Amino acid sequence: MYRSNTCGELRIENVGQTVTLAGWVQRTRKMGGMTFVDLRDRYGITQLVFNEETNAELCANANKLGREYVLQVTGVVNERYSKNDKMPTGDIEIIVSEMKVLNASDTPPFTIEENTDGGDELRMKYRYLDLRRSNVRENIELRHKFCLAVRHFLDAKGFIEVETPVLVGSTPEGARDFIVPSRMNPGQFYALPQSPQTLKQLLMVAGMDRYFQIVKCFRDEDLRADRQPEFTQIDCEMSFVQQDDIISLFEEMTKHLFKEVRGYDLGEQPFLRLPWAEAMRRFGSDKPDMRFGMEFVELMDVMKGTGSFPVFNDAAYIGGICATGCASYTRKQLDELTNFVKSQQIGAKGLVYARVGEDGSVKSSVDKFYEPEVLNNLKAAMNAQPGDLILILSGEDAMKTRRQLCELRLLMGERLGLRDKNKFSLLWVVDFPMFEWSEEEGRLMAMHHPFTSPKPSDIAKLDTDPANVLADAYDMVCNGVEVGGGSIRIHDAELQAKIFDVLGFTPEKAQEQFGFLMNAFKYGAPPHGGLAYGLDRWVSLFAGLDSIRDCIAFPKNNSGRDVMLDAPSCVDQAQLDELQLILQEKKVN
Amino acid sequence: MYRSNTCGELRIENVGQTVTLAGWVQRTRKMGGMTFVDLRDRYGITQLVFNEETNAELCANANKLGREYVLQVTGVVNERYSKNDKMPTGDIEIIVSEMKVLNASDTPPFTIEENTDGGDELRMKYRYLDLRRSNVRENIELRHKFCLAVRHFLDAKGFIEVETPVLVGSTPEGARDFIVPSRMNPGQFYALPQSPQTLKQLLMVAGMDRYFQIVKCFRDEDLRADRQPEFTQIDCEMSFVQQDDIISLFEEMTKHLFKEVRGYDLGEQPFLRLPWAEAMRRFGSDKPDMRFGMEFVELMDVMKGTGSFPVFNDAAYIGGICATGCASYTRKQLDELTNFVKSQQIGAKGLVYARVGEDGSVKSSVDKFYEPEVLNNLKAAMNAQPGDLILILSGEDAMKTRRQLCELRLLMGERLGLRDKNKFSLLWVVDFPMFEWSEEEGRLMAMHHPFTSPKPSDIAKLDTDPANVLADAYDMVCNGVEVGGGSIRIHDAELQAKIFDVLGFTPEKAQEQFGFLMNAFKYGAPPHGGLAYGLDRWVSLFAGLDSIRDCIAFPKNNSGRDVMLDAPSCVDQAQLDELQLILQEKKVN
Repeated sequence: MYRSNTCGELRIENVGQTVTLAGWVQRTRKMGGMTFVDLRDRYGITQLVFNEETNAELCANANKLGREYVLQVTGVVNERYSKNDKMPTGDIEIIVSEMKVLNASDTPPFTIEENTDGGDELRMKYRYLDLRRSNVRENIELRHKFCLAVRHFLDAKGFIEVETPVLVGSTPEGARDFIVPSRMNPGQFYALPQSPQTLKQLLMVAGMDRYFQIVKCFRDEDLRADRQPEFTQIDCEMSFVQQDDIISLFEEMTKHLFKEVRGYDLGEQPFLRLPWAEAMRRFGSDKPDMRFGMEFVELMDVMKGTGSFPVFNDAAYIGGICATGCASYTRKQLDELTNFVKSQQIGAKGLVYARVGEDGSVKSSVDKFYEPEVLNNLKAAMNAQPGDLILILSGEDAMKTRRQLCELRLLMGERLGLRDKNKFSLLWVVDFPMFEWSEEEGRLMAMHHPFTSPKPSDIAKLDTDPANVLADAYDMVCNGVEVGGGSIRIHDAELQAKIFDVLGFTPEKAQEQFGFLMNAFKYGAPPHGGLAYGLDRWVSLFAGLDSIRDCIAFPKNNSGRDVMLDAPSCVDQAQLDELQLILQEKKVN
Repeated sequence: MYRSNTCGELRIENVGQTVTLAGWVQRTRKMGGMTFVDLRDRYGITQLVFNEETNAELCANANKLGREYVLQVTGVVNERYSKNDKMPTGDIEIIVSEMKVLNASDTPPFTIEENTDGGDELRMKYRYLDLRRSNVRENIELRHKFCLAVRHFLDAKGFIEVETPVLVGSTPEGARDFIVPSRMNPGQFYALPQSPQTLKQLLMVAGMDRYFQIVKCFRDEDLRADRQPEFTQIDCEMSFVQQDDIISLFEEMTKHLFKEVRGYDLGEQPFLRLPWAEAMRRFGSDKPDMRFGMEFVELMDVMKGTGSFPVFNDAAYIGGICATGCASYTRKQLDELTNFVKSQQIGAKGLVYARVGEDGSVKSSVDKFYEPEVLNNLKAAMNAQPGDLILILSGEDAMKTRRQLCELRLLMGERLGLRDKNKFSLLWVVDFPMFEWSEEEGRLMAMHHPFTSPKPSDIAKLDTDPANVLADAYDMVCNGVEVGGGSIRIHDAELQAKIFDVLGFTPEKAQEQFGFLMNAFKYGAPPHGGLAYGLDRWVSLFAGLDSIRDCIAFPKNNSGRDVMLDAPSCVDQAQLDELQLILQEKKVN
């Protein structure tokens, strides 16, 4: 062992002991005849002292050390003259008597500090240096603790972690698969799993009863800021349960994790269970951020046909939110909001606002179209108080407009400081529709996935009114983020075939793609259900991160590249020949 | 919840309680007016009783149940008249008052019993039924317990589990990579990791200090019986350590796992550390099975040039083993042994044997070439006792012959019942050579991998005598199986470049493939080392399995196929177009 102690553990009670430490040079300071070196490892920082008077040669060597040199030093623990109560080892220092440079270091391309001067691109290229920064390292440690706590909890509840294969078959329903050519079966391909959904259902058919797995999943999608081509799920499934059983068990797990890992008490109360339709109506989102109110008020009765504003009179939906105390917003601030909702990302046509003055009067951007009485009705409907700002969106597609208003609500929540990262508000969204219409595909698509069970009372509607069939599906939402979701699954081969039919699969296609599952259902499939959590998202929430990237040791960038490894890359022709593959000529754009 | 209790938990003290169970019909028996149903779930089997007299309709329904039907029943726990002390629930039965068939089942293609009538192929196709068999299920449960125990132990020792990416760059050194075409970077490919070797080293450079991961790895090799294209490693790495530190920590872990998970006490003694050269000399193997002796005796002095047997006189190696009490082997048995060593798999030219009679006389298959004195010398050299059988192999390549003799030793150990699956013998093999000569490649290859550190005292020999450089590498061997292996790694960019040079990499090629690692070494890499265990093998050993397959939930067959999922399979042309790939015309053989 190169050390007797870590750089984080020595205290005043160790004074007088001879110790050996190893670590990295965080910084060096020369003060008179003394040289101070902060030596860092994963566990902390310890101050080393070199005295020119007592050992000139050693001190001269210390003065030559660069940042991030790797040292092994031996010395005596000494009580500091001026203590530093900001660091756990701040009471002591090491009077160094021996020093060995274990490795030198080039000057790092950015500083290894909590607030580094390195940009995103540079940090990712030198991720091994970026991970030396304590705040990044702490995210990785948190992830470890989180996973261990999940495993403890689920093991205690009788769950078994079962590894499912990574090389599976391609299932084109859902997102795009990554595929892997098989050398032993030329012309054929494995796919990397988008989730172990069907495999965990087979484990239920196999009688495993309670399964979980913390598992890598893969989706070949065009990446947005918060997506990675590979991501990690906490995947769970249970047999002989109903929706309530699953919700209450995982609610218990959630409270446990918040308390154990995050030190945050979610209280005794069960989480709110909000039906999907209500969530859309009140917040315009299936993952509402409930840390703050600012609920939607539908204004069709108040504003449509009650004046001459053509936009409202043609609208299928008019809705508003009330921003407390924002009546003082300047023209510029209001223009910013208008530009925000009109941006390509949001897509609204415009923004109507109304200020409520200190005297209770209402001044709006559509004053000329409405009598003062209507504006007073508006104020009343919104329950707006003097000093408040009413923001209104309208549109010809109610769902679309609600989603736009949702974005505006989140922005205003942000501006008003209502989205505190250290406050957590959790709920279940339930009663999702089974299907949603896809304009692109021109057919109904499964809102969750095609294995989700319709509510038993809605099964009859599959033939007559599939668009209004609700599912036994549920999402867990935290602070406006969907951290997990699941459903009761179909365990009946006939019902499963029926759903594939509604989704537009021919029986042959369904058999080809999901025959293994429907076949398994013929041999005594138990009722079952489950859910999956997004580990990356959950850890990011605990860590207060804006992106999932910093809780992943080696993330990929938005083009799916690992810039450190420089992957993906070209491969030898010989390798392609073995796989009997040819690259198409690159298209010139 | 569909049940109040599992099928494994009711006992005599529950008599009189009304309970609801759910599970699978294991078997039904009709005896007079009574029908007995064994209901099974993961937790056990409970006997259900239906009485024709008290509820004729219910009993008639019970008589219609088929094997593997899924039931929900409610009834009262009753003390059995004739108890069954072979099952934990054998004191009680359930007098059923309500029954619901949750799902019917077709007749399963094989019996769901410990000793099933299903062949391998059928079991794999219906793996979800195979996993219902208690012995297969127990392997999966054991795997879960094993992994959890590993995580507990390593967490307590300060290790962090860090997930490394699955989509990485291709590193042609080593086995063949599986590659994954990148749609966003056409013409480029990710590779699936053969192990996270370089990534865990980067985590050491990142200061993570103690890392582990239970992680899927991938090798596109032609599969032998005990290989899978995807397998699981317990991957570990530590900084600021020497070989002894790693060996003693993982020895502690091993003893802990044996005790906690297998209930087997490996004792206080440290494991034997056997130098590689000695292991080859004494057992002809770098993973000797030490459950029994039967060590090799080199017979060059005794048999070469001491008689007229040309085979021995031309041999570069002559070695024997002594099979206790086997002098009575018949001609047929000896022919079997000869055929075994001459089989293609072993490749020896022939087998020489010598029986030691009860009177101490030696009778050998080469009697005519040797004086009795030589044969007596042989007996003495082998320390053979009356009744023993001496088996001798010779050859022109000492290493090859030793490996052949090793196979013979293992076979004889098997025949003599010396390879008890419930006995465990562990050791470390140390002091591996850095390189081995590859006839195929016509160059030196890394015996472990190119990141292994040579022994410091041998570094000078890299220029003059690389074939004799020893490495700081070690394998952990249990019962003739290499369960794990590792090494101290190189942490110096220059030494790493030197090794690549010895391995025949041009500086450009080394930079292209491992530039990210050598570059990282420039920024203060700590001394580090680690090891990796094969999880599948270790669990198989604990479970007493002959193949790793039955401790894997969904294994692949020898052609790399998942016969249940029917993967790999063909994909749509549209999918290939997106990846800009063309399939070569299939070669007609």
